[in-house]
Amino acid sequence: MLSKNAIKYINSLKIKKYRLEHQAFLVEGEKCVSELLVSSLTTTAVYCTESWHHRYSKMLGNGKFVVELVTENELTKISDLTTPNQVLAVAAMPEPPEPEMKIFSDIILALDSIRDPGNMGTILRTADWFGITHVVCSPDCVDIYNTKVVQASMGSIGRIKVHSMPLAELLSMRPKGTPIYGALLQGETITSKKFLKNGILIIGNESQGISQQLLPLITDPVFIPPFLHSENSAYHAESLNASVANAIICYEIRKQLGENKF
Amino acid sequence: MLSKNAIKYINSLKIKKYRLEHQAFLVEGEKCVSELLVSSLTTTAVYCTESWHHRYSKMLGNGKFVVELVTENELTKISDLTTPNQVLAVAAMPEPPEPEMKIFSDIILALDSIRDPGNMGTILRTADWFGITHVVCSPDCVDIYNTKVVQASMGSIGRIKVHSMPLAELLSMRPKGTPIYGALLQGETITSKKFLKNGILIIGNESQGISQQLLPLITDPVFIPPFLHSENSAYHAESLNASVANAIICYEIRKQLGENKF
Repeated sequence: MLSKNAIKYINSLKIKKYRLEHQAFLVEGEKCVSELLVSSLTTTAVYCTESWHHRYSKMLGNGKFVVELVTENELTKISDLTTPNQVLAVAAMPEPPEPEMKIFSDIILALDSIRDPGNMGTILRTADWFGITHVVCSPDCVDIYNTKVVQASMGSIGRIKVHSMPLAELLSMRPKGTPIYGALLQGETITSKKFLKNGILIIGNESQGISQQLLPLITDPVFIPPFLHSENSAYHAESLNASVANAIICYEIRKQLGENKF
Repeated sequence: MLSKNAIKYINSLKIKKYRLEHQAFLVEGEKCVSELLVSSLTTTAVYCTESWHHRYSKMLGNGKFVVELVTENELTKISDLTTPNQVLAVAAMPEPPEPEMKIFSDIILALDSIRDPGNMGTILRTADWFGITHVVCSPDCVDIYNTKVVQASMGSIGRIKVHSMPLAELLSMRPKGTPIYGALLQGETITSKKFLKNGILIIGNESQGISQQLLPLITDPVFIPPFLHSENSAYHAESLNASVANAIICYEIRKQLGENKF
């Protein structure tokens, strides 16, 4: 049975302040927890129903962390999901990665004030799919250890190196000649743009776009062209969702550069 | 001042049953409401703060619907958002579009049990960007008039024709030779696939994918290739978010077919 202290501790991890204090975060759901258990992250506790335990006990074999059986009712008390899902784990926050110069040899994703947890998680999941290892978040991005971000990232949070620093600082560190691609509503269309194999791709805030101070630093503004039927060319969505724009540009970059690896 | 009846009516529209009964739905936020006012949809009421009214009064000129000034406190009582945003409107549901044969001359998006409101809204917004006019939802998709869907669609809901019918029925109606593209985790990679200018693109449920009964009907399974670095080729996200997969495939289709219009 869950102790009051355990419930209190777990619930505190729904708040950023306490995640930082305890250097721990929550991972929920079958898929995310099983990804956690095979990742390089350290699991410190698993709270699961008997039925989950029955199916996944092989993954729990090493005895390095607490495993506690809970009822579905108890799970409701600690879950951050509307529909709790068999299992909740506590993981230790990894050490923040060092911003080494070698990260500039590949595409780096730079997120400028991404605020929506669903978007953030989806962006990390997409980066993972397209083999983008380093993601740099501006300090005003949503916390990547927010439960909804972890959930939407579907396990990718254990594989991506997520840095947090002012983006202007990242840009100032880059080797000469590293292009800075900015996803904008004007610029060269990504269908004609020739992307290099390295560079920094900036994705802007959901409603404000890329911040004013960064705009002059963009060397290569790029643009996802809408498709216009002649009869309704004046009417279409004004922009794309940030995680969608990110996905399309990452796809195009990898397609251009990686045909042989696709 | 808002009457109790108005508050009751507006709040009822947060529930699908009452949306259907009243054939009306809510639209919130500056961007979405201003899109609504210039769309072909019928607005029946606008509840706004004085500051919103001051900025947008020109859009309200025709007197065809109720405009009521409300305080931010009153807005909180009727809003479905965590942070209410200056304005809330009530719109009449449009007549469902007729599934005519001419819809098969372009790409049709077929959504198989998309359940997440954010994904649904994002898919409609993306379809709108890429000039896809007809979207067919299976009856078990999230209601497109759900406030969170309307919000995430960012006005696109007023431009896209959204049909609701079993997808097997849609497929059976199609002219001979119309390809059925299914977004799967195996199939031809979209980087090598040659897409036709018409066809049905099926996007499956967030966790289950495309339903078993539809799988044998897919004529052209397609696949978004992950990018594999040799050193970590075994580890990457297992799949992409449904709205991201949709966006990448729509982009690739339009890019192949529409260079001249891009």
